[in-house]
Amino acid sequence: MVLNLYLNLFSSSCRSLYIFAKLHVISFEMIPVDLMKGQRAPEKFVQISPLKKVPVMKDEDFVLGESVAIMLYLCRRFKTPDHWYPDDAEGCALVDEYLAWQHLNMKKHCKKVLWMKVGHHVPHEKLEEAMTELSHSLDLLKNKFLKDKPFLTGDRISLADLMALEDMVQAISADYNVFENRPWLREWQEKVESILGQELCDEVHGPILKLKEAPAISSEMLTKFDVMKSELLITTISTT
Amino acid sequence: MVLNLYLNLFSSSCRSLYIFAKLHVISFEMIPVDLMKGQRAPEKFVQISPLKKVPVMKDEDFVLGESVAIMLYLCRRFKTPDHWYPDDAEGCALVDEYLAWQHLNMKKHCKKVLWMKVGHHVPHEKLEEAMTELSHSLDLLKNKFLKDKPFLTGDRISLADLMALEDMVQAISADYNVFENRPWLREWQEKVESILGQELCDEVHGPILKLKEAPAISSEMLTKFDVMKSELLITTISTT
Repeated sequence: MVLNLYLNLFSSSCRSLYIFAKLHVISFEMIPVDLMKGQRAPEKFVQISPLKKVPVMKDEDFVLGESVAIMLYLCRRFKTPDHWYPDDAEGCALVDEYLAWQHLNMKKHCKKVLWMKVGHHVPHEKLEEAMTELSHSLDLLKNKFLKDKPFLTGDRISLADLMALEDMVQAISADYNVFENRPWLREWQEKVESILGQELCDEVHGPILKLKEAPAISSEMLTKFDVMKSELLITTISTT
Repeated sequence: MVLNLYLNLFSSSCRSLYIFAKLHVISFEMIPVDLMKGQRAPEKFVQISPLKKVPVMKDEDFVLGESVAIMLYLCRRFKTPDHWYPDDAEGCALVDEYLAWQHLNMKKHCKKVLWMKVGHHVPHEKLEEAMTELSHSLDLLKNKFLKDKPFLTGDRISLADLMALEDMVQAISADYNVFENRPWLREWQEKVESILGQELCDEVHGPILKLKEAPAISSEMLTKFDVMKSELLITTISTT
């Protein structure tokens, strides 16, 4: 039985999983979860994920949520190269440290900036505050994690780099210039993307980056935004 | 060289680590970090933790932050019994799932309720909102994780139970009645505490639970609260 991944590629966590699975030629069926406003979630999805959140993985009868948990499961189940999540105690502890840190830092702030940029009626000072928080997270990405190393947790790429890249793409999609005064970030991005493969990155980042090019807030964007706002929680379903 | 743990036991994450280390007779030196408002952080602490956040672990030259990462490191380094973080792929994935989930759910909402209860000038509706969020997290603790099992991730206690217990203590300290209409929560708590040892639990929970008994908001409480508010980020230090 093939591995099922329930994903929506507007979510950075889902994109990380998709790229990771593709990169390692893990045989999986992607079940796109288009949680459009007011639309019913696919029955099959609600059954396996009562929280109605993506990503969700189903490996035969084993159902698992939370992107960090799914990513670590894939590393173990498919014995992916060691550098993603090293075997040695210190190496994997550094990846664990980043994966724990990012929830309330990179992921939270990149998502918030996109949420605010795409949303309407967001007061200017709230947007400023969100951008300041994101800027602080990006500074920590350098000063606490990257430092002078090639990658966030060492000399080789790890899950930390993949997750951070996808969160950063969320901020770029909000037209936030993450690279301003941060030449190190562009260098790091190029290194990470060259390992992941430019073709795969372009394919996966295409749809989300189009949000940036949109001339104004369209109803389509708002619908998509509404999905991202609550990390794909189908609030509408629970009341209909 | 003995393992150093920089902790403040008003933080639920620090208490989880302290209990885990004590329980497994891990030889460690606890360095209490009393981040009192306006007080300088210990020089030694700032050097190893530029973020000025606890917990921090130092094992010889290896410095690690983030409670989840430190906990997993201790499991591997000291080969603690398997049930805390199982060796099998599915067992440890379920613990990973909880540890990822709790950041924005149990931990966040229990901390927020304490923050608001102890703080002053918190509007009533904000407090109500925080209590509703916490109530939702507690419902998910049952419906998504515990279900009809003895412990959150299976038949035996795991890191998930320890972390959840300490977060719950944070809410109890705010005088929030977590047990109202939740007999299952009391049962689960008793099972977890009996494994951890009542004496150890009483010792570790004593100081934080005293916050509840305080007749009114004292300046001492506010000082302590200020520490918890930002998960022990010494905001005052950075500006003085």
